[in-house]
Amino acid sequence: MTTTTTTYEFVHDKFGVRPTDTNNPISESSALDLGRVALLAVYGSDEMIADTARVSYGKGTKKSRDRRALIRYLVRHRHTSPLESAEVVFYLKAPIFVIRQLIRHRTANVNEYSARYSELSDDFYVPPVSYLGTQSTTNMQGRDGAVDPIRGESIRANFYSAQQNAMDSYKQLLGDGISRELARVVTPVGVYTELYWKCDLHNFLHFLKLRMDPHAQQEIRDYANIMCMLAQPHFPDVFDAWRDYVLNARTLSALEFRALRALLKDHVPPVASYPTDLKMSDREKADFRALLDDLLA
Amino acid sequence: MTTTTTTYEFVHDKFGVRPTDTNNPISESSALDLGRVALLAVYGSDEMIADTARVSYGKGTKKSRDRRALIRYLVRHRHTSPLESAEVVFYLKAPIFVIRQLIRHRTANVNEYSARYSELSDDFYVPPVSYLGTQSTTNMQGRDGAVDPIRGESIRANFYSAQQNAMDSYKQLLGDGISRELARVVTPVGVYTELYWKCDLHNFLHFLKLRMDPHAQQEIRDYANIMCMLAQPHFPDVFDAWRDYVLNARTLSALEFRALRALLKDHVPPVASYPTDLKMSDREKADFRALLDDLLA
Amino acid sequence: MTTTTTTYEFVHDKFGVRPTDTNNPISESSALDLGRVALLAVYGSDEMIADTARVSYGKGTKKSRDRRALIRYLVRHRHTSPLESAEVVFYLKAPIFVIRQLIRHRTANVNEYSARYSELSDDFYVPPVSYLGTQSTTNMQGRDGAVDPIRGESIRANFYSAQQNAMDSYKQLLGDGISRELARVVTPVGVYTELYWKCDLHNFLHFLKLRMDPHAQQEIRDYANIMCMLAQPHFPDVFDAWRDYVLNARTLSALEFRALRALLKDHVPPVASYPTDLKMSDREKADFRALLDDLLA
Amino acid sequence: MTTTTTTYEFVHDKFGVRPTDTNNPISESSALDLGRVALLAVYGSDEMIADTARVSYGKGTKKSRDRRALIRYLVRHRHTSPLESAEVVFYLKAPIFVIRQLIRHRTANVNEYSARYSELSDDFYVPPVSYLGTQSTTNMQGRDGAVDPIRGESIRANFYSAQQNAMDSYKQLLGDGISRELARVVTPVGVYTELYWKCDLHNFLHFLKLRMDPHAQQEIRDYANIMCMLAQPHFPDVFDAWRDYVLNARTLSALEFRALRALLKDHVPPVASYPTDLKMSDREKADFRALLDDLLA
Repeated sequence: MTTTTTTYEFVHDKFGVRPTDTNNPISESSALDLGRVALLAVYGSDEMIADTARVSYGKGTKKSRDRRALIRYLVRHRHTSPLESAEVVFYLKAPIFVIRQLIRHRTANVNEYSARYSELSDDFYVPPVSYLGTQSTTNMQGRDGAVDPIRGESIRANFYSAQQNAMDSYKQLLGDGISRELARVVTPVGVYTELYWKCDLHNFLHFLKLRMDPHAQQEIRDYANIMCMLAQPHFPDVFDAWRDYVLNARTLSALEFRALRALLKDHVPPVASYPTDLKMSDREKADFRALLDDLLA
Repeated sequence: MTTTTTTYEFVHDKFGVRPTDTNNPISESSALDLGRVALLAVYGSDEMIADTARVSYGKGTKKSRDRRALIRYLVRHRHTSPLESAEVVFYLKAPIFVIRQLIRHRTANVNEYSARYSELSDDFYVPPVSYLGTQSTTNMQGRDGAVDPIRGESIRANFYSAQQNAMDSYKQLLGDGISRELARVVTPVGVYTELYWKCDLHNFLHFLKLRMDPHAQQEIRDYANIMCMLAQPHFPDVFDAWRDYVLNARTLSALEFRALRALLKDHVPPVASYPTDLKMSDREKADFRALLDDLLA
Repeated sequence: MTTTTTTYEFVHDKFGVRPTDTNNPISESSALDLGRVALLAVYGSDEMIADTARVSYGKGTKKSRDRRALIRYLVRHRHTSPLESAEVVFYLKAPIFVIRQLIRHRTANVNEYSARYSELSDDFYVPPVSYLGTQSTTNMQGRDGAVDPIRGESIRANFYSAQQNAMDSYKQLLGDGISRELARVVTPVGVYTELYWKCDLHNFLHFLKLRMDPHAQQEIRDYANIMCMLAQPHFPDVFDAWRDYVLNARTLSALEFRALRALLKDHVPPVASYPTDLKMSDREKADFRALLDDLLA
Repeated sequence: MTTTTTTYEFVHDKFGVRPTDTNNPISESSALDLGRVALLAVYGSDEMIADTARVSYGKGTKKSRDRRALIRYLVRHRHTSPLESAEVVFYLKAPIFVIRQLIRHRTANVNEYSARYSELSDDFYVPPVSYLGTQSTTNMQGRDGAVDPIRGESIRANFYSAQQNAMDSYKQLLGDGISRELARVVTPVGVYTELYWKCDLHNFLHFLKLRMDPHAQQEIRDYANIMCMLAQPHFPDVFDAWRDYVLNARTLSALEFRALRALLKDHVPPVASYPTDLKMSDREKADFRALLDDLLA
């Protein structure tokens, strides 16, 4: 009987007692014009995720796989439970309309600045000229063509003055003694708010997949990209696997698969010379050959 | 089992897709100045909740309890699973700042009007004079004293003009060809949005408990009260039990219980003449006597 | 301005007040040797899902799409919120080891028979000979080769007698006055239990995807297949779309896509004669051409 | 902010992957006859919970409250979001029937030993004589009277032999080559399984409230009590507040409150000499006086 042990370092501080494998736990970045993203805490690691998965395998298994291969297997086969064992905690300063999209991801834990309890920040979002797209004609919920720079500056000025006027009205209502929870009614959805946002790694990756997508609004894409960039170094194996098997994977509908098969039929010999130098595991290679058999038959 | 059917009409026009004011048991109400609440569908009933609970009791039970007693037992003992078997579906038209509070209840299913896809409504919330409380000095997140009516009208005018100006800017940005998802940045959180909101009965009652509370903001309390009023007739036994055991129950902290006991010690004889005509089940009476024993010992 | 209306029939019975478009609301089937699946209630319909999606589109949209095309769009783009507006409610009688897998889908609402409150059923699962697979050597968690029929009958007898002996011990412990919650300790996980299981349509389809998969244990696959068969007629458009875009879709990892591109490079001319008679919407055709451009470039 | 680190070892051998008995602050305990509970990691602390709550208060607040008072305020008013910012991670070895109850708490993240992938442990639960209660006549789902020690030993022997026989049948089926996922059908729910269980602090406290309750089955109460004992030192302020305001609080139904008021009416003077030396905050005192006014009026 062989026995091996792995060892974690546990940090004890106000963030708790948690495994860590990094000397650079907390990092941050600016976002949009006045926003900010900080990764406050990371709970778990590639190693801990692999160990969590290994609890499923005990007696009856020949050997425990190495960490990287195991994590790739988990991500490829959508075995998501071990990824739920890790958590990321962010501080975000973002416009309300961005937060409204973020909040739709219901598995996260959220603590937001209260505009009932406290006065709202004076900060509001004014899009840069490069972001001033006109209404897309093909995508009902997107922007398309750029605005020329000179007109752009004038439009930016309108974004600024409309919101500044609203904030002046807000201040005046407060000055008149109106309660904060009521005065805020006139403030724009471009105003910055702040929150703490905690999410397990599985649901965080799902959030990233949806909000890093080209169809997501550019402003939340900026936040999602920053959050990805900050979290990624803490889970290098998970993020590599996620990019290969999820983010950059291509899904063919049943219709597309059939159409592709029909198309290739006239061009590719059924017994194609299958590639042999793939950077895939043996199991992946076998699955790929089965796919090719299906596609080129 | 009797089955009846009614029909319900939905209007599709340029103002959206909304239930019409038809004459049927699925009911609706206006809310705030321009808002609306409609109970679109009710899934389940007192009877079905009782039947769901009865799946737990099979062989080995003497008799199944009658429906009302069973439901009171479930609510009193926080056996919440059977209440999850029922659902309510609402259409809501409400200001964004109200929806922002509603959305925090994460167990509901939500489909909201998209201000990326479609132009926002022209409607925004202007509080009535009677709602124009000044900032509370004791409750950091509340309003207190009333505003005198003449000043009130002038303040209302400010609520109106600030939001109208913002909406004019929004229209101008749209007129300039700016995409909807971007132009909306300048719109106030007082603007009305629309959504469908579905929630199981257990989580709906929890929502009502929190949002009918005097500490909740008056505007969402209005919505919660209407939603309660519309849903209640469909589950009379559940709502009765919930009022007795949850909404109007009083919780004494361990500190308060000790303090009350100390206080009564000097006034009440240990063997108090217990009341006998309580409108309680036998089990409740026994529990109450145990409580008194504890309190008056 | 054009105004159109849709009309729902609403049924009022103990299952609530709900839209319905079927004359055959409740259906059932046997499962395994002594199990059963009944579809108790269906809340919502293709039409209601489409109307729920349409709340997102109001002013600013040219026309509302027809139902089938809209539903296909929703499923293809993983716009899952409207699918959450529908619910299915099942009664299940299934062995404990199957229920243990079912329960891992945490978004469902569950009410299970209580073996603390009531005596357990005498029914337990004895696999048919055709299910008696030997341990797979390639799939650590699966079965492989068949057992020969004569040996199979003898092994079935062992499944039977081991469980019958355990149930006899259970009865004896009950006969000795031991409480039900304790006596059940000796009962096997093959014993049948019963539950009500309610799930929104989005999460139900996710459950089906995972549990109709060839890697799922055969016994829960049987249940998933039956549940799919019973629910499908109530949402024909949704299930068609789900089969095309999810269940029968093929996902190519980034590695596989690159490998396929390299492979086709030597066989297919870059400007392939693209197919034109695809049964796809215009948008799907455009996406497919983009995919081909990527693949065959 | 002080930071210290400790290390923690995991054993990987044929019995699985388990935390070792190392000498460190992450603690563990045995449970039942062969079970075990280890607190693997704690994410967050009283201090971090308070900081999370403080994000709600910014400009407009006079001063931030001290940590302990703030936490008591949060728990008393059921402001549960900040408590969701902390997490506890447990390793549990427990019988299947206990895990079945644990799993019903759906907000936790779970990774369990797979009896499809690996052979089940030989360990099963045999209740001690002191736990061998007979069926309660007043509580349909509980146990009551003790069994006399000599009969108890004989009954224990039955618990042992019934499960040992079942495990022998399991081994025989495995020996016959039957796949693990199938052979396990005959194993009893008293068999020990293992899992990792992660839960945020708010939902963990809710779990403890339900499962430390006298109506919960004794076996899961043992686990809940141990888990409470292990987690408590990491959040001393939260647990203190939770004991005062939740666990040891007494809830009077509306019926009980009215009955108590009627009862006290004849005994206590309306203007009772209110106690003045209560160990309460000023706000609590005010609330308590309001309660007394209500009760003794």
